[in-house]
Amino acid sequence: MLEQLRQQVLEANLLLPKFGLVQFTWGNVSGIDRASGLVVIKPSGVKYEALTAEDMVIVDLDGKTIEGKLNPSSDTPTHIELYKAFPNIGGIVHTHSRWATSFAQAGKPIEPTGTTHADYFYGTIPCTRHMTSAEITGNYEMETGKVIIETFLSLDPDSIPAVLFQNHGPFSWGKTPEKAVETAVVLEEVAFMQYHALMLNSGLLPMQKELLDKHFLRKHGKNAYYGQR
Amino acid sequence: MLEQLRQQVLEANLLLPKFGLVQFTWGNVSGIDRASGLVVIKPSGVKYEALTAEDMVIVDLDGKTIEGKLNPSSDTPTHIELYKAFPNIGGIVHTHSRWATSFAQAGKPIEPTGTTHADYFYGTIPCTRHMTSAEITGNYEMETGKVIIETFLSLDPDSIPAVLFQNHGPFSWGKTPEKAVETAVVLEEVAFMQYHALMLNSGLLPMQKELLDKHFLRKHGKNAYYGQR
Amino acid sequence: MLEQLRQQVLEANLLLPKFGLVQFTWGNVSGIDRASGLVVIKPSGVKYEALTAEDMVIVDLDGKTIEGKLNPSSDTPTHIELYKAFPNIGGIVHTHSRWATSFAQAGKPIEPTGTTHADYFYGTIPCTRHMTSAEITGNYEMETGKVIIETFLSLDPDSIPAVLFQNHGPFSWGKTPEKAVETAVVLEEVAFMQYHALMLNSGLLPMQKELLDKHFLRKHGKNAYYGQR
Amino acid sequence: MLEQLRQQVLEANLLLPKFGLVQFTWGNVSGIDRASGLVVIKPSGVKYEALTAEDMVIVDLDGKTIEGKLNPSSDTPTHIELYKAFPNIGGIVHTHSRWATSFAQAGKPIEPTGTTHADYFYGTIPCTRHMTSAEITGNYEMETGKVIIETFLSLDPDSIPAVLFQNHGPFSWGKTPEKAVETAVVLEEVAFMQYHALMLNSGLLPMQKELLDKHFLRKHGKNAYYGQR
Repeated sequence: MLEQLRQQVLEANLLLPKFGLVQFTWGNVSGIDRASGLVVIKPSGVKYEALTAEDMVIVDLDGKTIEGKLNPSSDTPTHIELYKAFPNIGGIVHTHSRWATSFAQAGKPIEPTGTTHADYFYGTIPCTRHMTSAEITGNYEMETGKVIIETFLSLDPDSIPAVLFQNHGPFSWGKTPEKAVETAVVLEEVAFMQYHALMLNSGLLPMQKELLDKHFLRKHGKNAYYGQR
Repeated sequence: MLEQLRQQVLEANLLLPKFGLVQFTWGNVSGIDRASGLVVIKPSGVKYEALTAEDMVIVDLDGKTIEGKLNPSSDTPTHIELYKAFPNIGGIVHTHSRWATSFAQAGKPIEPTGTTHADYFYGTIPCTRHMTSAEITGNYEMETGKVIIETFLSLDPDSIPAVLFQNHGPFSWGKTPEKAVETAVVLEEVAFMQYHALMLNSGLLPMQKELLDKHFLRKHGKNAYYGQR
Repeated sequence: MLEQLRQQVLEANLLLPKFGLVQFTWGNVSGIDRASGLVVIKPSGVKYEALTAEDMVIVDLDGKTIEGKLNPSSDTPTHIELYKAFPNIGGIVHTHSRWATSFAQAGKPIEPTGTTHADYFYGTIPCTRHMTSAEITGNYEMETGKVIIETFLSLDPDSIPAVLFQNHGPFSWGKTPEKAVETAVVLEEVAFMQYHALMLNSGLLPMQKELLDKHFLRKHGKNAYYGQR
Repeated sequence: MLEQLRQQVLEANLLLPKFGLVQFTWGNVSGIDRASGLVVIKPSGVKYEALTAEDMVIVDLDGKTIEGKLNPSSDTPTHIELYKAFPNIGGIVHTHSRWATSFAQAGKPIEPTGTTHADYFYGTIPCTRHMTSAEITGNYEMETGKVIIETFLSLDPDSIPAVLFQNHGPFSWGKTPEKAVETAVVLEEVAFMQYHALMLNSGLLPMQKELLDKHFLRKHGKNAYYGQR
């Protein structure tokens, strides 16, 4: 069942240790088959070295396991909320990567001050609000998804494909699981640069809107001209 | 004698250079056999590349060498104090790992501001007080253990399995030597993130108690639901 | 056509991931054949692992593709402007390397405070001004080159072979593509050291002129005595 | 001639890139044969990958090349001054390693605030004064050595085996070339930790004298008990 997506999700998960985004069993990547509404996701707490395509767990959008012997990632309800709210995305990544998590713990969004940012994110990468006690003690992982969705009420998740979850860490997404991982890698670079730029210039202002437009739109959308077309 | 524990302690020691926690002969891991009250520990000043299971030294809880041709780690009396005071632990690690040691040298505890912290430590990772002149010039390594125990008088070492020893570096522990090393690795991640979060937000407050509870308890204790069970 | 330069430009491009200066398809190196006025440059958006000498694109100084099936780097017009204005350079590199880009995003030049800097750069490594809206929305990549040239109106590009482009990242150059990459690597070291020196000493002043002279001139120019001659 | 020392100096030089202390041809290690008063040193500007024992240059304490086809390191006169002034040392290392050089560029000594420091350095690692114009424009590399010696007028080079040369970088030394490299590696660790400790605690004070004594003396001198004896 969903052999190809299983393989894609496996490979995208294996990119996390390759790019230094995770330790031990931390982090998870999922992918969705929009036709069937089924989500393929990493099992909970299994080491990356041992992961196989068969270990991937298939769940439906109600969170019910459809296929797989292992428990799905404990963050599965968060992924499901995002797939339901963001109709164009095909893959989601969650890590505790060092630089992005530092911003999340500080409760600071990442404002665009460089073209590396603008090449991938069309504006500020937001940081969520604190969760309420009720959200934490209730269906925590589902509420985590809902808080992300609330954060994007007036933002476009397709052009700002990541969020910093306060006190927690980053979530990123994209058209495919692999693209979502690429965004997670770039987010780490962007966080590194913004951290040091802020230390060098505490009054740093966001870049000009024209420059943000230029860089995002030369790589994305119908007038893009970066790469081979 | 204690062949299996020797092997476990050897392998746990070899994880220290693998995870970048030590240089040269720095650092040491021990394990205890609670039935016999014997401790297996790395010899002093031997290079990791050359270590074998036979090189491990067995000492009793009075610090007397029971088996082994080499001198045990000079920190052995610290390990022994901790094994005597913390009855549930089976392994101890000491390193001068870069990020945790930076906090120890600064004399700063690590307050919980992120879920990475909360997944492993159920509250602030304390920093010890300065040692007195008498403690330093007396039985220094034993007194080091006693100062750690004093620091945990009103803390639970099973749910806060690490300490920052002021002007020195981290000690961590766990049910097994391998678990103690895992905690040492996570401590390094947590210290990295807290350092940068503090630089980004000098007024950073600890996370909500509910969120600390949620993350620690979903991985630990009888209602844990993370991983495969 | 230009087989040797193609190979040199390929190899110089492959040094970028080797030295950790780029992620994914980021960054580009070009080289010029001054006799024919032809520029060899990396194609746009192609992964480094897959690059071959045949993939390199040959363009003339009007930006017209002379040979090659792929689109040249989208930064080609910037390279061309620099080749036209700086007659002694034979290679150009552009990256978003982490430390240099942090200074570029902060809008801060790198003043000379150490001999590592002085060994390669005969003075402050400048940061460009912000681009105007007209420059961004016009022929952006060409205007990028023009802003660099303006920055060097009273500077010598042969003795200060790099610039920090504000909100963007570094460009460096040299007599050959390989030399331009060497400068990009050194710039990263210099930015790392200056960042931390500034954090340790916020009132840090530039080094003495005599020391700058001594180090630059013992490695460059007719009285150089460093290395084998 | 001096085959064994040549080999030792070669191997010590090769440790510099292995431990990440140098880029390209930067850095140099020498060793002295006290019986003959001859110094073996790395040639100037030769890549580490290509270095052989035969490439090492032998000079006498007047700086005259006794054996070798290549030019000796341009820093040779600095090494010679130190060998003449510090009679117990057998090897010297100079690098532009990132963390130690950041302190040198900032003009800041490294005060002892942790036991990693105290295990290797019996007090503050000093930073030299600025050089005078006459020193820089005169016999620069020899004067560099003289400024280091002046810095140690009231310090013991055997118990503080390194210096930060202002606006330049670290020099370290030891009984053998290999020991001098070990000290260079530790200096980098110590600088890393002190940097971050200072950022966390700007009012950080040096450690207690008793603790400095304890750690230095348990590894050095006649009552040392660390390691295998």
